[in-house]
Amino acid sequence: MDQKYHLFYELAYNLAQVAYDKDEVPVGAVIIKDSTFEVISSSYNQMRQNRSSIDHAEMLAIKIAMTRLDNERLNGCSMIITLEPCPMCAQAISFARLSNIIFSTEDKKSGGVLNGPVIYNSSSCHHKPSIIRINDEGRSKKLLKKFFQNKRKNKGN
Amino acid sequence: MDQKYHLFYELAYNLAQVAYDKDEVPVGAVIIKDSTFEVISSSYNQMRQNRSSIDHAEMLAIKIAMTRLDNERLNGCSMIITLEPCPMCAQAISFARLSNIIFSTEDKKSGGVLNGPVIYNSSSCHHKPSIIRINDEGRSKKLLKKFFQNKRKNKGN
Repeated sequence: MDQKYHLFYELAYNLAQVAYDKDEVPVGAVIIKDSTFEVISSSYNQMRQNRSSIDHAEMLAIKIAMTRLDNERLNGCSMIITLEPCPMCAQAISFARLSNIIFSTEDKKSGGVLNGPVIYNSSSCHHKPSIIRINDEGRSKKLLKKFFQNKRKNKGN
Repeated sequence: MDQKYHLFYELAYNLAQVAYDKDEVPVGAVIIKDSTFEVISSSYNQMRQNRSSIDHAEMLAIKIAMTRLDNERLNGCSMIITLEPCPMCAQAISFARLSNIIFSTEDKKSGGVLNGPVIYNSSSCHHKPSIIRINDEGRSKKLLKKFFQNKRKNKGN
């Protein structure tokens, strides 16, 4: 795991666990300022809590960061996430001008960075963050798997 | 112009004009319930006003609609917009389960429905709304052109 982002990934993973405990799809996101390592914002999926299918961890973290910095551009900031962003979040990250995204688990079904529409390779994408992969030894993937297995089990009852 | 959506398009176009007057990229969006023709929400771009590059008209209209209906699914609702949605909004529309999107002007540079990543054709898209085009006789396109021409003129001064 890239040592620079190690601690922030743990913060993001903790938030994914908070989401899990709240019966939300377990994903956590942290935005930091690269020059100072300040945490600008952090969030977790709140789709159930907010009754909003677009309140992904990344969208909430971006909104909080823009409010906190009073700036619609987050140049020089990085987002650390426990799952590959979906196409909506990938495009929001581009609009926010985030410099780097760092994530562990790939999302083959619904991802938008390495999978699906591969947003940053599209002609409509005018800012491409650098993509850094992090190895969390499968913890985030395991948490997601447990969450969806429980969902299916409960549906079966 | 499809008579069913004629009036709602005029509402959306009025909101694009409001955005223009507020120095926002002139785009308006309206969400209606198809069975009753109720307006559930309406909004315009508020990226400058809210200091948030992700506060597109469509995102704001979706959030208001979900809050108003207390439901993260907007099945049976349609969104009428003055511009082709970008990839972020296109994916948000899919997450929101909107049944139809109706728009006039195509966005060859930054659109995500007909252009760029063509979100609804992607393997990561699990709900595809129907796409209906509306002919506004070039009014929305003209308004956008005027906005960006003024921006360039002001930059030149």
